Amino acid sequence: MKVHSQHTKHSLLFKDIGIDTNQELVVFMPASCHVCKSEGFQALTRLSISFNGAAIIAALNITNDGLLNEGEISLSKSAIQKLNVQENDLLNVAHVEPLQSMTHVRAKLYGNTLNQQQYDKIIQDIAAEKYSNIFLSSFVAACSGDNMKLEEICSLTMAMIKAGNKLEWGNEIIADKHCVGGLPGNRTTMIVVPIIASLGIMIPKTSSRAITSPAGTADSMEVLTNVNLSLKQMHNVVERENGCIAWGGAMKLSPADDIIIKVERALDIDSEGQMIASILSKKAAAGATHCVIDIPVGNTAKVRTIDDAINLSLRLREVADYIGLNIQTITSDGTQPVGNGIGPSLEARDVLDVLQNSAAAPKDLRKRAITIAAEILQLTWNVEKQLAEDLVIKKVDSGEAFSKLISICEAQGGFHEPGQAKYCKTIESAAAGIISEIDNRKIARVAKLAGAPDAAEAGIDFMVQLKQNIGKGEPLFTIHANSSGELEYAYDYYKQNEKQIIKLN
Amino acid sequence: MKVHSQHTKHSLLFKDIGIDTNQELVVFMPASCHVCKSEGFQALTRLSISFNGAAIIAALNITNDGLLNEGEISLSKSAIQKLNVQENDLLNVAHVEPLQSMTHVRAKLYGNTLNQQQYDKIIQDIAAEKYSNIFLSSFVAACSGDNMKLEEICSLTMAMIKAGNKLEWGNEIIADKHCVGGLPGNRTTMIVVPIIASLGIMIPKTSSRAITSPAGTADSMEVLTNVNLSLKQMHNVVERENGCIAWGGAMKLSPADDIIIKVERALDIDSEGQMIASILSKKAAAGATHCVIDIPVGNTAKVRTIDDAINLSLRLREVADYIGLNIQTITSDGTQPVGNGIGPSLEARDVLDVLQNSAAAPKDLRKRAITIAAEILQLTWNVEKQLAEDLVIKKVDSGEAFSKLISICEAQGGFHEPGQAKYCKTIESAAAGIISEIDNRKIARVAKLAGAPDAAEAGIDFMVQLKQNIGKGEPLFTIHANSSGELEYAYDYYKQNEKQIIKLN
Repeated sequence: MKVHSQHTKHSLLFKDIGIDTNQELVVFMPASCHVCKSEGFQALTRLSISFNGAAIIAALNITNDGLLNEGEISLSKSAIQKLNVQENDLLNVAHVEPLQSMTHVRAKLYGNTLNQQQYDKIIQDIAAEKYSNIFLSSFVAACSGDNMKLEEICSLTMAMIKAGNKLEWGNEIIADKHCVGGLPGNRTTMIVVPIIASLGIMIPKTSSRAITSPAGTADSMEVLTNVNLSLKQMHNVVERENGCIAWGGAMKLSPADDIIIKVERALDIDSEGQMIASILSKKAAAGATHCVIDIPVGNTAKVRTIDDAINLSLRLREVADYIGLNIQTITSDGTQPVGNGIGPSLEARDVLDVLQNSAAAPKDLRKRAITIAAEILQLTWNVEKQLAEDLVIKKVDSGEAFSKLISICEAQGGFHEPGQAKYCKTIESAAAGIISEIDNRKIARVAKLAGAPDAAEAGIDFMVQLKQNIGKGEPLFTIHANSSGELEYAYDYYKQNEKQIIKLN
Repeated sequence: MKVHSQHTKHSLLFKDIGIDTNQELVVFMPASCHVCKSEGFQALTRLSISFNGAAIIAALNITNDGLLNEGEISLSKSAIQKLNVQENDLLNVAHVEPLQSMTHVRAKLYGNTLNQQQYDKIIQDIAAEKYSNIFLSSFVAACSGDNMKLEEICSLTMAMIKAGNKLEWGNEIIADKHCVGGLPGNRTTMIVVPIIASLGIMIPKTSSRAITSPAGTADSMEVLTNVNLSLKQMHNVVERENGCIAWGGAMKLSPADDIIIKVERALDIDSEGQMIASILSKKAAAGATHCVIDIPVGNTAKVRTIDDAINLSLRLREVADYIGLNIQTITSDGTQPVGNGIGPSLEARDVLDVLQNSAAAPKDLRKRAITIAAEILQLTWNVEKQLAEDLVIKKVDSGEAFSKLISICEAQGGFHEPGQAKYCKTIESAAAGIISEIDNRKIARVAKLAGAPDAAEAGIDFMVQLKQNIGKGEPLFTIHANSSGELEYAYDYYKQNEKQIIKLN
């Protein structure tokens, strides 16, 4: 009888069936597959798939109905890219050893405290994409609520930093800023960066694109210039201009966090520890030494009460101390949108208005940006508050900050003016009264239904503020969209939620 | 401007792409889909999919590469069956409200104790297939280890009973038995049921098919007769014969448990509470009033130490008391396979040998079956141990139990003799010595690689026992398979693991 020397390895023919499961690596095998049967593979089993010297670990889904034939195998899109396979390549399938680091997740679930080495192992495995979604979910569950001790949050943060790339700038002071939880229109970064850079402090900013919001800083900056910078391009820009605003998504600053956050969001499970590790690991990995963290507080903001904001502040500072990052936290009003525009182009326009000191410049956005920039000055230069504010205001009023933004844009690939949406519709108040409440989340939804951020020009232009006295028929906001269908969607959603979106007294 | 009254409902054209995700309901939409974009649907978002008055909730996967075109939508196999859709049907897609019962899962994760109503809600939602895998994983995590208080295990058990069907037998005493964790070859049920039924005690047994083992009782019984009984057929058999052995899988006795157990197994997270609720809810739902639970203890069994077995016993009894089920737990040897045959047909042959008092009958299987049957007699009739054993042995020795098994088979659809595998290979000991350890899990693996349980005749015939003195070249076991390839697989795996499978001193 012939004896196979590698009986647990089976070759199957690759066929692309075009399933994108997002970050999760999934392998598809037909129910008829003799390998599945003889090896006892079941749905959700983790398998090792190898090709041409590379190997991944993927979760098994069983297909039926002839999509795959006996002897064929398929992979999810991310898995195809990782293995770089093509139609009709022969893939090897094998059992994998149980995930050792899941032992630590189980220990955490059973109430134990994990140490640095244990968090390192978990985060390395997650960054290496060895965790399927159900494993990620169990880890998120284990760390949820206030289940993590301070020392564990420190360990998790360190583990996340170690598992990603770290940017190096060769400067003693590298400034950064962060805002916890989105507030529609809060595009301060694009004002703060040119102010700080024009003051001679290095601020190589990496920003994210919108995930659930109508615009991220990277989306808004992209209206004005290129944000897809390589690390080398970013270094060149920063060397020349002292600052940049680049998309951080491709830099793998905290790859484990990028993976965890998707499952966390889908589960809607909050974890203070995860949030702190997420924020601080990315700042440290981006090479920051001094960072101001803005915590907007409001009913429809991420942090809802001032008590929560204070607790979060304390924790952030303790963990930042541990990893050697100087931070200053500030709380701000999170009860209404910031500025007028909501959506990439409309927010970019607000930024330009502020930096050009135009009459249309939204005062609240200007004030917030100045406050944050002044806090960065106090933190890095250790100057008095009043002096810091004076220095910052001078840079804005003189137009130096505006020139710096243009120079940064030129260095990143050229400056372009924001565009205009094709369709507009202005919404008028159905009644008279004093505006008592604004729902940030629903306002963001209107802007997204209008097409933001995919359509950069789409979004809404907000014309009112809390406590404002408004007459019947007076304009509340204008919806901007690039198709009449999207304009309809957005308007329709507004009409159905009118009374919750803007409350009158 | 036209206003849609139902802006959140979108119609998309159904196309079957043949993905089976097992129990998880999944919806596939192309990345290009305008509905995804405008509604902000992301991968893993839970969506409501409706068609023809029926609706399901499914988790979103995004497809690429032209598998689906803009305006098209697909579903996983189980979702297609639920909605009963066909190619080119128009499906409606809408947002769903957040899953209310996940609030309780989060509360449990945050360290709270849940009450009956809260477990009811969670289990109802799981049984209604509203939980995607990541939600299930977070629930399994929340209940893992010893995180559940006794009162919570009671609540979970009750919730599982309420969420499924309950069989009614109209008798004061309904006997049942259960074995915790599989032991290869431990096919006592097929001996115990005819003994008990022939004593005049009603024992309407529902059994499972193999999930990870080479044979479940339903697989082995199916070698002898039909086990796919409708509830009505089952009632007829039991009315006539006082007992039956039917496949319980289609009876939805504890549908939530069937769903949870798959994720639990993939995660390899143990939860004492889940296990107790799983066992007892199914017994209660099957209409049992008196149940003997066998707990095999051994290094490669589910329960590894006698201490664990005692703790589990205590918990099982407390929860059984709470739900009004009379149980007796017994511990047994879990260090080696039971009987000779491992695999559906080979185990059925052992059962027939025991009941026919043939010389080849494995003594350990006979002894175990007699012990369990006698425990059932003590529990239901409250008789002395010795008397109970005498009564049971008489039923076996007289052939009455055998006749009863044949009658039950006839009532279920006719009796057939077990078949023989096409290929056999006998494994001989490579050395001489005393057998000191047998790895149950690896032995099961050899039988599975040989084709069990799909090939009913496949498996292994085990010829040795612990403490046995064995000479070099003496037979250890015979592999049975229906194809030479499977015989090779099984043999090859054995050769690679030879020293761990059977250890000699």
